[in-house]
Amino acid sequence: MDFIRELIEYVKHPSVSTDSAFNEGMTGAREHICGLLKKAGLEVEVVPTPLHPIVLGRRRGPSEWPHIVIYGHYDVQPADPLNLWTSPAFDPVVRDGKIWGRGTADNKGPHLTAVVAVAQLLKRKPDLPLRITFLIEGEEEIGSPSFPEFLDKYKKELSESDCVLLSDTASPSSDQIVITTGLRGIIGLEVGLTGPRSDLHSGLHGGAVYNPIQALSELCASLHDADNAVVIDGFYDGVEQPLRWEREELRKLPMTEDEYRRFLAVDELHPAPGLDALEAVRFAPTLEFNGIGGGYQGKGSKTVIPSKVFAKITCRLVPGQDPVDIHRKVAEAIRARSPKGVRVEIKEMQGNAAYYVCPPDRSNTPKNQNPVLARVFREADKAITEAFGKAPLYLREGGSVPIIGDIRRETGLDSVMIGLFTPDSNLHAPDENFEIKMAERAVKAYELILERLAGSPRT
Amino acid sequence: MDFIRELIEYVKHPSVSTDSAFNEGMTGAREHICGLLKKAGLEVEVVPTPLHPIVLGRRRGPSEWPHIVIYGHYDVQPADPLNLWTSPAFDPVVRDGKIWGRGTADNKGPHLTAVVAVAQLLKRKPDLPLRITFLIEGEEEIGSPSFPEFLDKYKKELSESDCVLLSDTASPSSDQIVITTGLRGIIGLEVGLTGPRSDLHSGLHGGAVYNPIQALSELCASLHDADNAVVIDGFYDGVEQPLRWEREELRKLPMTEDEYRRFLAVDELHPAPGLDALEAVRFAPTLEFNGIGGGYQGKGSKTVIPSKVFAKITCRLVPGQDPVDIHRKVAEAIRARSPKGVRVEIKEMQGNAAYYVCPPDRSNTPKNQNPVLARVFREADKAITEAFGKAPLYLREGGSVPIIGDIRRETGLDSVMIGLFTPDSNLHAPDENFEIKMAERAVKAYELILERLAGSPRT
Repeated sequence: MDFIRELIEYVKHPSVSTDSAFNEGMTGAREHICGLLKKAGLEVEVVPTPLHPIVLGRRRGPSEWPHIVIYGHYDVQPADPLNLWTSPAFDPVVRDGKIWGRGTADNKGPHLTAVVAVAQLLKRKPDLPLRITFLIEGEEEIGSPSFPEFLDKYKKELSESDCVLLSDTASPSSDQIVITTGLRGIIGLEVGLTGPRSDLHSGLHGGAVYNPIQALSELCASLHDADNAVVIDGFYDGVEQPLRWEREELRKLPMTEDEYRRFLAVDELHPAPGLDALEAVRFAPTLEFNGIGGGYQGKGSKTVIPSKVFAKITCRLVPGQDPVDIHRKVAEAIRARSPKGVRVEIKEMQGNAAYYVCPPDRSNTPKNQNPVLARVFREADKAITEAFGKAPLYLREGGSVPIIGDIRRETGLDSVMIGLFTPDSNLHAPDENFEIKMAERAVKAYELILERLAGSPRT
Repeated sequence: MDFIRELIEYVKHPSVSTDSAFNEGMTGAREHICGLLKKAGLEVEVVPTPLHPIVLGRRRGPSEWPHIVIYGHYDVQPADPLNLWTSPAFDPVVRDGKIWGRGTADNKGPHLTAVVAVAQLLKRKPDLPLRITFLIEGEEEIGSPSFPEFLDKYKKELSESDCVLLSDTASPSSDQIVITTGLRGIIGLEVGLTGPRSDLHSGLHGGAVYNPIQALSELCASLHDADNAVVIDGFYDGVEQPLRWEREELRKLPMTEDEYRRFLAVDELHPAPGLDALEAVRFAPTLEFNGIGGGYQGKGSKTVIPSKVFAKITCRLVPGQDPVDIHRKVAEAIRARSPKGVRVEIKEMQGNAAYYVCPPDRSNTPKNQNPVLARVFREADKAITEAFGKAPLYLREGGSVPIIGDIRRETGLDSVMIGLFTPDSNLHAPDENFEIKMAERAVKAYELILERLAGSPRT
C-alpha cells in the first residue's frame, strides 16, 4: 500500500462535513478509506448516523489479545478562501517533500500512516496476536454530533478494549515528536443581531437607529479586557493551572516565544495574563471570534445600515471548565449585553466537548493502571525514539478532539496521541500540507508499537 | 412618451456603478436615457470621464431665456442581497400601484418624470422661451469622482445658467411633498486589519495572537459612546445647530417619532444626544458602519482565527464640518486605536462631499438674489400645491448628492430639490420601488414649473 498515492486519492474527495454541498465528497472519502481498511486485511463495518456514517475496521481475535482502537476522521475543514491556495485544495500535489491539499494533515495523512503500518505488519505477520479496531468518523470538524449515539451503541465493545491510539495533534517537526497529554474542550455559538426591518439608506436614516454592526462590535469588544482576559462572570471559575512538570516539559520545545511570534508573523503576541503565548495556547481557556459578517462586503461602497449581522464564536476549555456551564455563561453575557435597539439570536454550535488530560505515568486515574495502556506509552516512547531519532516530548495541545473526552467519560478508555502534523502544516488554512518524511517515520513507529504490543498481558 | 414603459426599460439595464462587472448595464442605461432625451427634442452630448460618461441633453436658446439645469443619475446601488427581492431587481414589474426594481426610485424614476414633462411640454409648446440642460451622471452612487473634472470644463456654461432643479431626495408620501433645503455631506473609508500571516487553527493557536475580529470590534466599538455620540477628537467642532424655523417645519411632518420607530421596526431609536431621531437624521453628523467581514461566514463552523478583516465606514456631515478635515480625524483615530498585534490599512472611499444648504427666501447667500432662482422656488411651491393637492414642506434631508455642493462651490449655482421617493421606496435596499401616482403628479408639477418659468426675466 503506497502511502503517497493513497493519500492523494483520499484527499481528492472533498469531504467537507459542515456543508451538505459536499456530501458526494464525504461518500467518496468514506468509500476510499473502507477500501484501504479491507486491503489491509480488516473487516469493515459502516455505521449509519443521522449525518455522516462512522467507519469501523476490525481485526478480531481471542479476548486475551490486547485490543487497540485507532482513531481518525475522514472529514475535513472547508477549503475557502480558495484563491489563497498555491495548488488546488482538492487536487493534491507533491512539492518540496510535502503533499499539499485540504485534509492532507487534518486528518487523512496521519490516520493513513496507521492504516499503512497495519497493512504492512499484517502482511509480514499474519498471525499477530493483537486485536485492532479502526474507528474513522466523518464529523470531527463539526464537533462529532452523532458520536454520543454511536458510543451508546458500541460502548461495550470499546470498554473491553485497552486504549485508543491516534494522530490528530501536532509536533514541532519530524525531528521532534510530541505525545499529546491533553486537549482543550470546545463550545461554540453564533450570535445574530437584527436591527431595522431591512437594510436602510445610511443617509436618509443614519443617526436614527442602533447600527447592528456597531452593536455587534460593542458586544464582541466587551468580551475581553485590555489584557486579553475573557470578561464573562465565572468564565475562569475552577480553572486548573498547568502542573510544574508540564511547564518544564514545554521549555524543551525547540521554539522560543519570539520564534513563535515570527512564525505567526505578528508584531506582538497577545496571550491572556499570567502565561506566555506558548503556554497560553495549551493551558489557558479562550474566547475566539471565527467569523463576522454584515452589510455590504463587495467592491467599492454601498451606503447602508445593515438589518442583520452575525459573529461566530468558539471557546476552548481547560481542566476545571464544564462545556454546558461555559456555554450558558457566554450566552447569558451576550444576551445581557445586547442593546435594546437590536434583537439578539444565539445559535448553539454542534458538538461541544470537554477538555481531556491523560499524562503518562504521572496520572493517577484508575484506568491508567491498565497494563496495556502503560505499555502503549512505553512502546510509543521507544518506537518514536527509534523511528524519529529523538525521544518524544509530553505536552498538552490547544486543539480539541471532542470524541476523546466522550470515550473516556463513557468507557473509561484513555488515549495515546502521537502528534504528526506540524505548525507548517497550515491546518484549517490555505496550503494545508503533510510532510512525506513525517509520514514515513510515522508508519515505521506505528508498525513498531503495534508489533511490540502484540501478545502483551492484559492484566 | 409613456413613463411606466420607459422606466421599466431603463431599470432593466443593471447600471451598478461601483462594480465593473456591470459596465454593460451602465452603457445600456446611458444609451436608454440618451434616446429619451433625443425623443424629447433635446440635443444630446455624452461627455467621457475616466469612469462613467456624463450625459448632457440641451435645449439651447437666446441668453435672455431663463436656463434651468435638471440633474439626475443613471447609476444605481448594488442589488444584493438578491434573495430578499420579491421580484427580480433588474426585471421590474408593476404591483400595488408601484414599479419595483433597483433604481426605480434612486434615481431613474424621479429624473424620468422631468424628462417626460419636458417631452410633453415641448410637444405642446415647441417655441417655449426656456433653455434646459439635462445633466445625467453615472457615478452618483460612488461619490461622483469624475465630476470635479467635468465641472472644471463645463464651469462657464453652468455658471451662466440660473439654477439646478432635481429630484433625488425624499418626501413623506405622494400626498405631502418636501422641497429639500439641504443635504448632508459624506466621507468614507475602508479599514482593513491584518493579524497573523494566514488564517490560523483557533485550537492550536487560540490565545497567542490578537484576533483581528476582536481588534476590529474594539476599534469600531471605540468610535461611539453609550449615547451614540461619535468619540473622535474634534468631530463635532464647529457643527451648526438647525435653525428654529427648520425645527418648526419638521414638526409639520406627518410622522411622529414613534411612527418612525415602528416604520423601521426597531424596539428603540438611538439618536445622538440633543436631538430626536427625526431631527438627528437631518441635522446631526454620523459615523455609520456600512459593512464588516472577516473569517468564516459559511454554514456551520470553521474554527479559525482570521488573518484579515475589514469594515466599511461612512460619515454624514452637516454645516460646519469639512470633509477633508473629518476624513483626517477619523483616519487618525483609527490608526491611533489599532492595537500593536495587527496591521491597519485605511483606504479612502471615492467621492467625499461637503454638506449643502439652500433654504428658500430665508437664505442670505448672494446667489439667492437671482430672480429666476427665487421664481423657481415660488413656482415649485405653487405647482406642487396644485399637482399634489397640498403645499410642500421645506426640510433638510440626511442623504448626500455630492455634486450639488460641488456645483455651488464652483459656479455659485443653487439647487431646488423636489423630493419624489418616499420612506417606502426602500432605497439602497431590496424591493426598491417608485409609486405611479407620485410619478404622474410629478410629471404634472414639472410641466407646470417649467412652463411658468419660461420667459421669466433674468435680472
